Amino acid sequence: MIMCDTVTLNDKKDAIKIIDQTLLPNRFEQIELSDLESVYHAIKTLQVRGAPAIGVTAGYAMYLASLNCHTSDVKIMLAELERAGKYLTSARPTAVNLKWAVDRMYNIALNSRADTREKMINLLLSESVKIAEDDIASCTVIGENMLQLLRPGMGILTHCNAGSLATVRYGTATAAMYLGHERGYGFKIYIDETRPLLQGARLTSYELSRAGMDVTLQCDSMAASLMACGKIDAVITGADTIAQNGDTANKIGTLGLAILAKYYNIPLYICAPSSTLDTGCPCGEQIEIEQRDAYEVTSMWYTDPMAPQDVKVRNPAFDVTPAELITAIVTECGIYRYPYAFS
Amino acid sequence: MIMCDTVTLNDKKDAIKIIDQTLLPNRFEQIELSDLESVYHAIKTLQVRGAPAIGVTAGYAMYLASLNCHTSDVKIMLAELERAGKYLTSARPTAVNLKWAVDRMYNIALNSRADTREKMINLLLSESVKIAEDDIASCTVIGENMLQLLRPGMGILTHCNAGSLATVRYGTATAAMYLGHERGYGFKIYIDETRPLLQGARLTSYELSRAGMDVTLQCDSMAASLMACGKIDAVITGADTIAQNGDTANKIGTLGLAILAKYYNIPLYICAPSSTLDTGCPCGEQIEIEQRDAYEVTSMWYTDPMAPQDVKVRNPAFDVTPAELITAIVTECGIYRYPYAFS
Repeated sequence: MIMCDTVTLNDKKDAIKIIDQTLLPNRFEQIELSDLESVYHAIKTLQVRGAPAIGVTAGYAMYLASLNCHTSDVKIMLAELERAGKYLTSARPTAVNLKWAVDRMYNIALNSRADTREKMINLLLSESVKIAEDDIASCTVIGENMLQLLRPGMGILTHCNAGSLATVRYGTATAAMYLGHERGYGFKIYIDETRPLLQGARLTSYELSRAGMDVTLQCDSMAASLMACGKIDAVITGADTIAQNGDTANKIGTLGLAILAKYYNIPLYICAPSSTLDTGCPCGEQIEIEQRDAYEVTSMWYTDPMAPQDVKVRNPAFDVTPAELITAIVTECGIYRYPYAFS
Repeated sequence: MIMCDTVTLNDKKDAIKIIDQTLLPNRFEQIELSDLESVYHAIKTLQVRGAPAIGVTAGYAMYLASLNCHTSDVKIMLAELERAGKYLTSARPTAVNLKWAVDRMYNIALNSRADTREKMINLLLSESVKIAEDDIASCTVIGENMLQLLRPGMGILTHCNAGSLATVRYGTATAAMYLGHERGYGFKIYIDETRPLLQGARLTSYELSRAGMDVTLQCDSMAASLMACGKIDAVITGADTIAQNGDTANKIGTLGLAILAKYYNIPLYICAPSSTLDTGCPCGEQIEIEQRDAYEVTSMWYTDPMAPQDVKVRNPAFDVTPAELITAIVTECGIYRYPYAFS
């Protein structure tokens, strides 16, 4: 079982309750966000992270904005929602799901016939709950679909965190692991630490071991020798962007795993909600790769820098795995196999 | 040009001068070791590391032991050398080169006809200098051999530190980089940080950038995307053990690089002194892989642990690259190609 939902409303429905991920893996603490400023801060400082979890948080935040708006004039309320949406979006301007959730909430308010403050609040409450429920449902179906491709006792390798902590409940890459675990499948889960930000070590190994799974952590460079000794039956990761032809951008290191998996004849599965498909993007070459700061590689987490001060550093956030290296792409809509033609 | 020899005698020949590698990359400091206790401490705490550098240090230390032995009785001197050798060897019991150098020094003393303190000291001085000179000569020839396989302007990826800092002067994997750099080859050198001990980030990127080369550091998981974008023409690493059939144990991560290099049709070269060949070992399956402490993965270098306290950790120090993935093995004796049959 998962420990608790990553993002939810509190019982009184006047605050968002999240796991503060900046304290993991050393401290588990849930915090309540009852105003826009604390939601903005939580998104900006990565107390909540992962595209789906951010989207759900933003949905609830728009509902809170209406709750905290003490006017009976629905027009003033709409203006306040617009302002709130812009403010929230500015917390992480490149987070697509953040803007998507804000827009969905604002538009439902704008296009509704709610003519009282109370009706507006109820409308936004039910829409934000729907965003969260959609995420839970979508991850659950992804997990059920993925589970069809696995057998009890398998050794599974994952990379980064496409887990519960990135969504509301089951995660994407981890959904089949949670469902299988609930059914006694006895998977042996191996997790790459995922340099430089260590999401595998800090988050995935935390949430899966806390759920009671058999978890082993390793450095990213150890995947080849792990596969060589026959311990891995499947590699499962999430995705950041999937192109029409199935080329997939995901956390840096995924491409390497895909090539190793092919060499050792191990299937590689990508698990992601269908919203990850970018149907405007024909192939991987069109996906722009974010280059991040040298600091993350040379200095972050450390007491002293671990590289000479002036050294050039290459720090791409993602790499692109060509479609032909992906055994299957699993979404809530089904299981897709190469050659892919998403539309 | 290299900055200075990693291990040498001081001008007065009464102390060993080493670069204190525990201070790198943040501080460059040479320290003098004038007695056995300080040599023991330097080896144990990794102020000096790398098999060849440790061997040379041990050779000089045995000479110092004779210098610091104030007796005119050669038999007492031999007994003191035996004691010194045992003490030095205990600093890193698994370091083969340490024991090899100690034995070489002790045996030359034992089998000599030196009948005075002075003759004995001179004999041990010249033998220890010979060990150092042999290392320099061997690395230089490895570099010249390797350089025949490279062309100016190439992009070269290396892993861990088989560099100057692991030997006396040119290193093994790095020897051709230094020689090519001296001749204006304009290589572009890429270096894996090499988790968990970060020898690539702390040591290799330090020594090569200090030598004036064009150096770029990256995380281990970024090698695949670097190869994919066509920036790498050769991968060059050192070796810890080479079996008769060419299977090679080297720093964890080398196997993965070899598989990626094969996928992208990039040659992978192993550079090592012929003493790395274990002719008693028929193939890689016979090589025992050291499993190291979880602490190195979860906690070392960090202010707070980066993984849950009780998580299982896989931390093999080495992996074994099968001979068929190695384009050539380059030693001071020549360039060898698959199929290998060392004897």
